[in-house]
Amino acid sequence: MINVFEHPEFNNHQEIHFFQDGETGLKAIIAIHRMFQGSAGGGCRFYPYPGSEEALTDVLRLSRAMTYKFVLADIPMGGAKAVIMGDPEKLKTEKLLEFFGKKVNELNGKYTAGPDVGTNAEDMAVIRRHTSYAAGAQDVGGNTAPMTGYGVFKALSAAWQFQSGGKSLENVRIAIQGFGGVGYHLAQYLDAAGAQIIVADLNPQALEKATKLGYTTVSTLDIISQEVDVLAPCALGGVINEESLPKIRAKMICGGANNQLKKESLISALEEKGILFIPDFISSAGGAIYGAGHLAGKSEEQIQAQADRIYDTTLQVLEKSKNQQIDVLSAAYALAEAKLGERA
Amino acid sequence: MINVFEHPEFNNHQEIHFFQDGETGLKAIIAIHRMFQGSAGGGCRFYPYPGSEEALTDVLRLSRAMTYKFVLADIPMGGAKAVIMGDPEKLKTEKLLEFFGKKVNELNGKYTAGPDVGTNAEDMAVIRRHTSYAAGAQDVGGNTAPMTGYGVFKALSAAWQFQSGGKSLENVRIAIQGFGGVGYHLAQYLDAAGAQIIVADLNPQALEKATKLGYTTVSTLDIISQEVDVLAPCALGGVINEESLPKIRAKMICGGANNQLKKESLISALEEKGILFIPDFISSAGGAIYGAGHLAGKSEEQIQAQADRIYDTTLQVLEKSKNQQIDVLSAAYALAEAKLGERA
Repeated sequence: MINVFEHPEFNNHQEIHFFQDGETGLKAIIAIHRMFQGSAGGGCRFYPYPGSEEALTDVLRLSRAMTYKFVLADIPMGGAKAVIMGDPEKLKTEKLLEFFGKKVNELNGKYTAGPDVGTNAEDMAVIRRHTSYAAGAQDVGGNTAPMTGYGVFKALSAAWQFQSGGKSLENVRIAIQGFGGVGYHLAQYLDAAGAQIIVADLNPQALEKATKLGYTTVSTLDIISQEVDVLAPCALGGVINEESLPKIRAKMICGGANNQLKKESLISALEEKGILFIPDFISSAGGAIYGAGHLAGKSEEQIQAQADRIYDTTLQVLEKSKNQQIDVLSAAYALAEAKLGERA
Repeated sequence: MINVFEHPEFNNHQEIHFFQDGETGLKAIIAIHRMFQGSAGGGCRFYPYPGSEEALTDVLRLSRAMTYKFVLADIPMGGAKAVIMGDPEKLKTEKLLEFFGKKVNELNGKYTAGPDVGTNAEDMAVIRRHTSYAAGAQDVGGNTAPMTGYGVFKALSAAWQFQSGGKSLENVRIAIQGFGGVGYHLAQYLDAAGAQIIVADLNPQALEKATKLGYTTVSTLDIISQEVDVLAPCALGGVINEESLPKIRAKMICGGANNQLKKESLISALEEKGILFIPDFISSAGGAIYGAGHLAGKSEEQIQAQADRIYDTTLQVLEKSKNQQIDVLSAAYALAEAKLGERA
């Protein structure tokens, strides 16, 4: 069945735009879940999807998650997302990115792009040659990783507080999957709070850095099955899936990666195993808070104060989940929908 | 399988836009096959498709046909089309049309709308409240039916000339399906040329008009099986299908309806039966010539001269088909692609 409006992940998206260009080989989808005051934003993912079915499913899920991320983090922007189909190693050219920038510009602010898996600050700079609706370019604003790491720390602290009944993070064992920007910054805050840190990363330089800081390092295959209190996925999405689930020994999952659950229905299996999962659109919101705050001309103090509120939001969702006996995802969605309703 | 880029009718469309609005109930798809100098145009169909699969298939086919129609008729515009999903009787409101107009306007000229099945000149006037990119409004330009009928007459004359080896239309029997605007005007020209006319229409007033003019009238169920020389479909598309095909006794099909073939592959069965089919994007181009000419400020004489060239284009395609031993659709596509290549 070929469909879009009936797609299981459609969720009343407002607009979905498909672009194709024979010259550059571009095949892109821009999904706009909800606009707020006429605008929405989200990352631009460049990924070798097997086909547009998978690309569409991904962009719809990611776009909706952006709406929830923004509204729960009090960012006055709607959620959207772009995907470019193809292997960035082979297909990514300046011409293709420029063409994409033109198409973003033609949407006239309904969609603002940012870096995501497969795109980086340099790419955003190329896209910006043809549009001002791209954030996170190397020459505009800065690195969002520190504030993302800070936000994960806030969510994790709140969740630990909730789960442990008020204990500190002293000697709490935390496995961090991915020690690039976000994982590294998260580790700094956890380290300062006295936690014990275990790290995995495919990049040898990242591991060397972790070792120098005194952290335990394990292989990327083993990180998920560590006997720890908290698992913090800070790399790709989809790491919680039917294969990995039986291996997880942590009692809590809270990280900076987007769309950590391969399928949302996995939340039931997690809860049955007694694992507390913090929805990643809450825990990973620091980067978006930083990016949007920067664009809006906020001070570092204002931005940090907004990221601090991730702590309160996390607690609010966990208490709602407990009181109403619903899973945390449903609680987070309900809170997000209520906040969206207040906006309208 | 849920897909767009791999859709069998995708044919390298440049852009496909999906719009949904909860408030008005709008679900619309705007497909842009080829832009020419940044713009493309085509009708806006309002139709109760069972789902977006059927809507997408229809909009992609119609949009591509517009590109071919325009390029073969020397209209400097790319092909596009819009579909609004739903029963116009129930769903069509001013609010919905206004919302659609806003979305058309946001495309900033990449798509210009026109009336089609389920929309009319009044609707275009409502759409124009929010965009100048809509043609065929009651207060802008006039009725395209006379020039469409004239164009069909030109195509039919050329095809008859080709098939009969130069005979006149005197006493040639022609069954016209649909005696609304286009069918009526076609009949006037055929009548003047001495043809014998048989008419069917669901509307009793149209039939009364036909009877007064001295034409034979038959039921809409019987028109397709009339023993005539030429069948001229001037109503809805898809009238040539696996059910109707065995009933057709005409030796030629040439009319003003869009997308007369339910599936393009039916062209082989038609040729096997010895029926000459004139691709409708050639025969029905008079309306587009009139609309575009009107927008461009051409005189009636210039517009008519352009419509006269439908005769030459029809002959050119039929001769190409004969000389290269390919079916007429393939011949028409090849000619259209060659002309598109010259544009680029």
